[in-house]
Amino acid sequence: MPKKKGLTYLDVAESWPRLSAADRARRLKQLPPEAAHEFFFDLSAADQVEVLLMLPPGERRLWIRLLAPDDVADVIQAAPTDQRSGLLALLDEPTRAEVTALLAYAEDEAGGLMNPRYIRVRPDMTAAEALGYFRRQAQERSGRDTPAFAYILDVEGTLLGQVSLTDLIAADHATSVSRLMQTDIITIPAAADQEEVAHLFAEHSLVAAPVVDEKGRMKGVVTADDVVAVVEEEATEDIQKLGGSAALDAPYLKTAFHRMVRKRAGWLSALFLGEMLTATAMAFFETEIARAVVLALFVPLIISSGGNSGSQASTLVIRAMALGEVRLRDWWRVIRRELAAGLVLVWQMVSPLYGQHYMLVAATVFCSLIGVVTFGTFAGSLLPFILRRLGFDPASASAPFVATLVDVTGLVIYFTAASLILRGTVL
Amino acid sequence: MPKKKGLTYLDVAESWPRLSAADRARRLKQLPPEAAHEFFFDLSAADQVEVLLMLPPGERRLWIRLLAPDDVADVIQAAPTDQRSGLLALLDEPTRAEVTALLAYAEDEAGGLMNPRYIRVRPDMTAAEALGYFRRQAQERSGRDTPAFAYILDVEGTLLGQVSLTDLIAADHATSVSRLMQTDIITIPAAADQEEVAHLFAEHSLVAAPVVDEKGRMKGVVTADDVVAVVEEEATEDIQKLGGSAALDAPYLKTAFHRMVRKRAGWLSALFLGEMLTATAMAFFETEIARAVVLALFVPLIISSGGNSGSQASTLVIRAMALGEVRLRDWWRVIRRELAAGLVLVWQMVSPLYGQHYMLVAATVFCSLIGVVTFGTFAGSLLPFILRRLGFDPASASAPFVATLVDVTGLVIYFTAASLILRGTVL
Repeated sequence: MPKKKGLTYLDVAESWPRLSAADRARRLKQLPPEAAHEFFFDLSAADQVEVLLMLPPGERRLWIRLLAPDDVADVIQAAPTDQRSGLLALLDEPTRAEVTALLAYAEDEAGGLMNPRYIRVRPDMTAAEALGYFRRQAQERSGRDTPAFAYILDVEGTLLGQVSLTDLIAADHATSVSRLMQTDIITIPAAADQEEVAHLFAEHSLVAAPVVDEKGRMKGVVTADDVVAVVEEEATEDIQKLGGSAALDAPYLKTAFHRMVRKRAGWLSALFLGEMLTATAMAFFETEIARAVVLALFVPLIISSGGNSGSQASTLVIRAMALGEVRLRDWWRVIRRELAAGLVLVWQMVSPLYGQHYMLVAATVFCSLIGVVTFGTFAGSLLPFILRRLGFDPASASAPFVATLVDVTGLVIYFTAASLILRGTVL
Repeated sequence: MPKKKGLTYLDVAESWPRLSAADRARRLKQLPPEAAHEFFFDLSAADQVEVLLMLPPGERRLWIRLLAPDDVADVIQAAPTDQRSGLLALLDEPTRAEVTALLAYAEDEAGGLMNPRYIRVRPDMTAAEALGYFRRQAQERSGRDTPAFAYILDVEGTLLGQVSLTDLIAADHATSVSRLMQTDIITIPAAADQEEVAHLFAEHSLVAAPVVDEKGRMKGVVTADDVVAVVEEEATEDIQKLGGSAALDAPYLKTAFHRMVRKRAGWLSALFLGEMLTATAMAFFETEIARAVVLALFVPLIISSGGNSGSQASTLVIRAMALGEVRLRDWWRVIRRELAAGLVLVWQMVSPLYGQHYMLVAATVFCSLIGVVTFGTFAGSLLPFILRRLGFDPASASAPFVATLVDVTGLVIYFTAASLILRGTVL
């Protein structure tokens, strides 16, 4: 592709991660205005704040006013608390009102994700008139994308339907909008969680969807490009929780060391306290161990097998929940399935052991493994349901959490099996 | 919203999951044609195949020809092997050629994700002429979305730039396309992994991006609505691998039991064989255990602490890699950071233990925990780098895998610390 002379969007994009905040602001201003605006739109809210705060107050006003209200709301949320009212004050009155309304929605709700500006047309307009609205919007929003739809609202603001730019372009100029209107459309409640929004977009390949309040009044529009970022963010949060830490909420290498340690230490310490119970359980069986040291040899094997099968089960169930494939009412179906899986899995794992010589100890290990792996899959699949029922995020049933829970039980199962099988021989 | 009489898109969407394949095909045909087509477009490729195969061959042809070439390619890939050539034969000749070309790309490459049809204009056209192209496309593609851009190519098919529908609508009719053309755009190599494509879309809030081959020739377009589904799919794969199983590639409750067991048993069995080494390690220290049974009591505590810190570290690093926040060359930075985190974390975990009575054993446990947790974070953060370097998916360094690795080492660290500290007293 031929390059324009001078600095381009792509040049700046390439050097961006290595630049200091001051250099970023300077470099941005070296771009031709249109490219600079486009680049600024594409930045994350955190980077936009950084650039804004490096500019003198007069220029700040120009740049923040380029942004759509939903993007301004993100910028305000990303700004340090003491800068927020200063940034809000840079807006014109109607935009400030819109942004304040958006800030009232939680960041992870459809309402916090939507753009409150959209094209509104009347059902008795002609296609040519409606196209005129698109044309005017397009002229005002240089560098930004055209909305794909206009929305038809009644006098109370209730959404009646939508008409696509495609259909308007394809139609005769004189056709009335009401003839082109689609009424059978997927709408998103303003209070819907952003995870739900993402599923609706993925399931129906949506490009844009209107957000409505409980009374069906239109509040704004969510578009697919916003949703891409949301899906990545939600998956990252779940994965970090599954690994047994709190969500970092920032890129790994950019998270300050003390913040990262704080996010991780909580869970690790709690798990450690849980693991101290294993020492208690072991102490309870101290006489058995003293009599047959061979029993101690298999302790790590037993508890890890339970932990592994449990982590596997909980991870699969948690992801299925996050994708909406499994709901609370499916709990019994899932548990039954996991119990059966546990039994088959332990058979596949231990059948190579079957011919082992040390028969009685082998029998003990064998029976315990059946118990522990089955209990592991059971606990691993049940725990996410319990957490969700109690109103917690099921992703907190992390692999390490499940493993710890199963460790203590695994020891009890193992030594109980040992006393039943080995009593009268080694014990 | 007022409902049309008769069955609507939303009615069918609601009952869909509970319907059999035959009922699905029947219900779809009860919708008014436009709604039926739209519903069919929005189905997953697997559901589209199911419906198609329920229809008599004459109708199959009508329905499959409604789909864009990239969607047909997905349908063919989702169809049973013995049905594929039959479905391909239903297409007209040019579409069959396009679909065959798409099938040559891997499903998870940009080339497998793109739509090979796009609007191509010449730089010397006027805005009005270019809009005419959009108009014609829109008339041909009833029920589908308008493309947001037209692309300007030279005679060899090399991409020169793009012009947005927005700019065309906003411009004077007589303006030449070359004046409206954006040349500074993000392009996607046809061989780019779909994970890379997703990051580009998330990072730059893209609505659509052109796909080009190594010579800069335009091959097709990827749009944000396709990418939403990709991001969910990639995250699911990574999460399932992190949980210590192979990716299920299908919704949890829809995966056949024997398939699910097969996907999970492989890893569990491998991990089990790895865990057998813990029994070997324990046997090596059997005399120490026999002399001081108290040592055995802390074995589960030690190995789990190592496993937990290791799982945490590997999960964070793997996600950071998947998001492109951490690259191979960052390995030393990450490991240094994780080692430091390990030391701080173990201090936060065990400092409450500090005042314990049983001084020498407490000292042993304490020192071992420092060693094990530090080794855990070290191994957990290094392993994803090694796997990626060897060309494997770093997400295979699952929590259970890391835990197993750390278990064996943890035992060696613990008993070595014990023989150093306790020699001459209990040992």
